[in-house]
Amino acid sequence: MTIELALNKVLLENYNKALDLEGFSGERLANRLAAIARIGLTTDGGSCRLGYSREERQAKDLVCEWMCEVGLLVRTDAAGNCFGRLGGMKDDLPLILCGSHIDTVPNGGHFDGVLGVLLALEAVEMWKTTGFRPQRPYEIVIFSEEEGSRFNVGFVGSSAMTGALPDDGFAKLTDQEGRTFASAVEQAGLSLDRFPAARRDCSEIAAFVEVHIEQGPILENQGIPVGIVNGICGLVGLEMVVKGLAGHAGSTPMPCRRDALVAASRMVTAIAELPPLFSATAVATVGQLNVFPNGANVIPGEVRFSVDIRDIHAEALEKLAAQIVEVANQIALDCAVAFSWNQTLFLRPVPVSDELRTWQATAMRGLNLAPFELPSGAGHDAMLLGPHMPMAMFFVRSKGGISHNPLEFSSLNDCAVAARALSRFLKLVSASTSPI
Amino acid sequence: MTIELALNKVLLENYNKALDLEGFSGERLANRLAAIARIGLTTDGGSCRLGYSREERQAKDLVCEWMCEVGLLVRTDAAGNCFGRLGGMKDDLPLILCGSHIDTVPNGGHFDGVLGVLLALEAVEMWKTTGFRPQRPYEIVIFSEEEGSRFNVGFVGSSAMTGALPDDGFAKLTDQEGRTFASAVEQAGLSLDRFPAARRDCSEIAAFVEVHIEQGPILENQGIPVGIVNGICGLVGLEMVVKGLAGHAGSTPMPCRRDALVAASRMVTAIAELPPLFSATAVATVGQLNVFPNGANVIPGEVRFSVDIRDIHAEALEKLAAQIVEVANQIALDCAVAFSWNQTLFLRPVPVSDELRTWQATAMRGLNLAPFELPSGAGHDAMLLGPHMPMAMFFVRSKGGISHNPLEFSSLNDCAVAARALSRFLKLVSASTSPI
Repeated sequence: MTIELALNKVLLENYNKALDLEGFSGERLANRLAAIARIGLTTDGGSCRLGYSREERQAKDLVCEWMCEVGLLVRTDAAGNCFGRLGGMKDDLPLILCGSHIDTVPNGGHFDGVLGVLLALEAVEMWKTTGFRPQRPYEIVIFSEEEGSRFNVGFVGSSAMTGALPDDGFAKLTDQEGRTFASAVEQAGLSLDRFPAARRDCSEIAAFVEVHIEQGPILENQGIPVGIVNGICGLVGLEMVVKGLAGHAGSTPMPCRRDALVAASRMVTAIAELPPLFSATAVATVGQLNVFPNGANVIPGEVRFSVDIRDIHAEALEKLAAQIVEVANQIALDCAVAFSWNQTLFLRPVPVSDELRTWQATAMRGLNLAPFELPSGAGHDAMLLGPHMPMAMFFVRSKGGISHNPLEFSSLNDCAVAARALSRFLKLVSASTSPI
Repeated sequence: MTIELALNKVLLENYNKALDLEGFSGERLANRLAAIARIGLTTDGGSCRLGYSREERQAKDLVCEWMCEVGLLVRTDAAGNCFGRLGGMKDDLPLILCGSHIDTVPNGGHFDGVLGVLLALEAVEMWKTTGFRPQRPYEIVIFSEEEGSRFNVGFVGSSAMTGALPDDGFAKLTDQEGRTFASAVEQAGLSLDRFPAARRDCSEIAAFVEVHIEQGPILENQGIPVGIVNGICGLVGLEMVVKGLAGHAGSTPMPCRRDALVAASRMVTAIAELPPLFSATAVATVGQLNVFPNGANVIPGEVRFSVDIRDIHAEALEKLAAQIVEVANQIALDCAVAFSWNQTLFLRPVPVSDELRTWQATAMRGLNLAPFELPSGAGHDAMLLGPHMPMAMFFVRSKGGISHNPLEFSSLNDCAVAARALSRFLKLVSASTSPI
């Protein structure tokens, strides 16, 4: 039995068939998750569908086929984003957009992104089965290149749609093999020059909603299948450089040292202690740290490390970032090492629509579940859309909080709850024909 | 002007010609240092003469030529060690051996090793000029492959001479290009099978002395040109592995984390504080540290790092190493991460001969310099010879304490002091015809 066949088997084995309600089919969703998992399967049993790769294209094509089969009007825009449209009873009202991405990190899992795409489609399947048709037009979207693993820039499709592309459209970026972003895009049958044509008039969209796996441990710790996102964290990315003096590990007495790693270690330790002083939702991570020259018998002369700082509260985020720099500076002075830093990334927190959140809560209560809110620490396509239209997100419980990993897993039972919550929510949004 | 021509120019420009005493010639030494620097010159102006490379062979050949010219009997042993013998007045007395190595790290300097070889030769030149002939036979040695940069094992020549080679003679080692140690040795015109023949009866050697650059900042800080080594540090090498739980930097709240890098950073900080509690000469260094997966937005799941612990006092060394493991264990418990370690290296401290040290002090005082003692934190060929015969070392001041670097530098004035101290010391040892 191959791994991709095992996925739907595993999902269905533990599935409570009694959850097949309101037109939802656990078997259909499980089979579709498994079919997409077949594309870009890695030897670890993970997925590799990089942005603008052949595998991402194949996965998009397969979903587009399903969208056609259920009667949606399918099109692909200039940035490779795919849309499937269901006409509304009042087809000239601003539409509801729902979806996510289908690309993955190099050895990712089978739920990140794709679950949101398939649940957006599952809503249409449920409505077809139950004979429901929304007031507002409804569009499914598959965004191109969300992960950014290949060229180190993500959210490409959603950036193109919202006009947030840089002026050169990433023309100068190259991947690890030296291929330019423009040529990768061409190989995917697109032209970088035409990307600006993907920009869409956002006033025609009443709301965007994205379902995504949590990629964290909060829902699991709380024993809750589906949560309502109360904000997408802003992010401050810093690169820190500590320069001491390399020297022979044997012949430099301790008091004569200016060890860059000892100083950097004190900084890493201090950074981990700061977030709770600023906000309960704030986090700070030193994920990447490189030592130079990195020889067992050489006192480190230089250390470079990244700091990834996030919070849903803009003010706390900025204060925390400033304090991290301040503390690092102080430690550098104490250790007689040189310290420099630069900000590599700044993303403002993106709030979610209060009105949409109220409808999400109503949908959850309709399933006899108490609404539970949590922040999104990760970035999502919804983050790009949020500034332009009312936006909402559902999170589905991630087993062990694990993501970007072949072990990433959400149970089909949780997916069923998410499908039904989404369908109910979409009905509420569609029924409200006044501006949101 | 090429870099290698610049070396003797720079040396001589700042040389006090009045130091040309007792047969010493600054110009001869400067020209010889420059001539060796020409072999394996790197684009950075450094030296690359790896053990058993063509460049090491060329450098040995050139020194052997000079040894022949001054009338020494030259031979090469089965491990590629070169010897130049000057007969003694009492030629059946145990001999004095003096020398060092001529290989370098990949982009090393022009003094490490080679200075000790050339000063051993300079003593003979000085004696020839002044008409001195020692009582005891005197041998210069150029040891093969001291640095260990290529196969990660050093002291090969001195190990072969003292019978300290492992049973397989490193047969299984490979370099970064996959070449085996045996084939590297063959390309150098030797046979690994014959290495055991390099073993020498150490009872025929009355004393070994090595002059070497300090490779540290102590002499410079003290304003002293030449120091007397009072012991070679023992070394405990540890590899530490810290395993936490990788996770998304955005979606894992701070209290849920088991961040391997935060735990490792606390360990690095603690390790740097421990040595002075055990001995004034002890040092501990985390030189190599690698983070996995090392992505800016991933909480580190694993960190591996080296600890290099040294002291000239055996008991303090062992206690310090045990305490480092104990403290790391405690931090791992506090941080809820898994911790494992293994000892990768253990070398006992090697004492130097008290009697030889007394003669070194006498030689220094003869130059109107107060004797100054310091430990050798680095390993040297003398470390291999020390357990088998009386051993002594002189250290020459290193500019900025810098070594294993193209910027490595010792002034010709300091080299002149070392040459004269060595010659005087050798005369004292040679004159003492009773066992040392």
